[in-house]
Amino acid sequence: MPFSYTRTIRFQDTDAAGVVYFANVLPMCHEAYEESLVASGINIRSFFSTNSGVAIPIIHASVDFLRPMFCGDKIIIYLFPKSLTSNKFEIEYQIFDTKQQQLAKAMTRHACIDPTSRSRKELPTDIIDWLQDWNDLDATK
Amino acid sequence: MPFSYTRTIRFQDTDAAGVVYFANVLPMCHEAYEESLVASGINIRSFFSTNSGVAIPIIHASVDFLRPMFCGDKIIIYLFPKSLTSNKFEIEYQIFDTKQQQLAKAMTRHACIDPTSRSRKELPTDIIDWLQDWNDLDATK
Amino acid sequence: MPFSYTRTIRFQDTDAAGVVYFANVLPMCHEAYEESLVASGINIRSFFSTNSGVAIPIIHASVDFLRPMFCGDKIIIYLFPKSLTSNKFEIEYQIFDTKQQQLAKAMTRHACIDPTSRSRKELPTDIIDWLQDWNDLDATK
Amino acid sequence: MPFSYTRTIRFQDTDAAGVVYFANVLPMCHEAYEESLVASGINIRSFFSTNSGVAIPIIHASVDFLRPMFCGDKIIIYLFPKSLTSNKFEIEYQIFDTKQQQLAKAMTRHACIDPTSRSRKELPTDIIDWLQDWNDLDATK
Repeated sequence: MPFSYTRTIRFQDTDAAGVVYFANVLPMCHEAYEESLVASGINIRSFFSTNSGVAIPIIHASVDFLRPMFCGDKIIIYLFPKSLTSNKFEIEYQIFDTKQQQLAKAMTRHACIDPTSRSRKELPTDIIDWLQDWNDLDATK
Repeated sequence: MPFSYTRTIRFQDTDAAGVVYFANVLPMCHEAYEESLVASGINIRSFFSTNSGVAIPIIHASVDFLRPMFCGDKIIIYLFPKSLTSNKFEIEYQIFDTKQQQLAKAMTRHACIDPTSRSRKELPTDIIDWLQDWNDLDATK
Repeated sequence: MPFSYTRTIRFQDTDAAGVVYFANVLPMCHEAYEESLVASGINIRSFFSTNSGVAIPIIHASVDFLRPMFCGDKIIIYLFPKSLTSNKFEIEYQIFDTKQQQLAKAMTRHACIDPTSRSRKELPTDIIDWLQDWNDLDATK
Repeated sequence: MPFSYTRTIRFQDTDAAGVVYFANVLPMCHEAYEESLVASGINIRSFFSTNSGVAIPIIHASVDFLRPMFCGDKIIIYLFPKSLTSNKFEIEYQIFDTKQQQLAKAMTRHACIDPTSRSRKELPTDIIDWLQDWNDLDATK
């Protein structure tokens, strides 16, 4: 089962066109990612800090907007992480309203690096575990 | 009993000093305000839109920062609305962590206007009801 | 010559990893778009409002992150708009530092709609003119 | 002469009420503060980082909203820093449009601490110099 995250659209997410500002959808996806890490037992304060010896910055992101979102709307984000190489993974996000209408979809690609040298590094064990926790693609599970 | 709203500190709420960026605390208070309106049956999409015939912009805000907040922290915001005049109210916010330590407090003052002329206007009935729903100061309740 | 826009990275653009939060790069690109509209004589307050009879929401966005950006950095965004159909265009953004190192690139795709029915609509004349103002691809110019 | 900073209101600064979202005014004031630090020769990347041995977080902020601000508006922020004690200062911000109409005013209070122990610490020399650079209140200058 994919990880899912429910969220309410806030007034500050909107812009003067009356709907969610386009670039505000990606942080909502990142919130779902943060919650999925917490659900796998990862301490996100140290995970996202500069002192952890490893950093996994986003190297690519994309988002498709299918329907407008309004203040007060409830949205559900389904998260599908996928391992790419020993130092890269990507996450697909499917965003729906409470009537099962798709509102948006997005993708982020993450690469593991040494935060000082910024050279590539193997993904840490807890992230490999997290990838297995929420990876729906393995038919044997 | 005051209205309370629980929220998780997100990575995007933080800045390069490693803690929540000061100006991001006020939107968290506004989220609590939005949730309290929903809890009183108010449709916040139309309430905050430009077409509703009435607008209640914030005319003053202040915030005191007592302790730093970090990514992943759970916070609880208690909301204390108070009527001021027939066209003004204010809200006090008390922000705590899960160990009952106070992290911040804030205040917003709101004035009811006609959105076109921007002249003052009586508070609408649903807001007067909302003020009564969450006003703890009346000893008779 | 492409339109270019210079901007300073702000403290609020950063996150607890010490660099610009990934989703904050797209609003910087949108700022460049807004400035290019102003440079073509378009009133952006009415252009982006709900009352203008036409809306041109972003239907797709993507961004590649090549190097981290830090508080205080100066960045230059080059903007390359391109017409797609009679109701769609896209913009490519190339982001550099002051030493001509590329930091990021991005793309937004825009579709013209009627804001009420949300059905497709021809691009307005001022946007066709703007596309010609900043379109570098036509060799005859 | 006070430090002044000119800025354009961006689409992302607005909300579904068609004007600048209230909490977005404080970051604009902080941008003016950042620019004034740069103008006094301070490296703001290291100044705002976690590794600098000193941190000067904001402990209080307030803002008054006098007139609405719209996408595309040019605003001018005048900055008036004032020393309070050996480890505290505050900044007053006056925000005007290009017709000299006041739009908002704001205040931030800053306290110097050791970032690890979070106990109070004397203001560093470069900040004392900055306070003198932009302090208009000393009649002898």
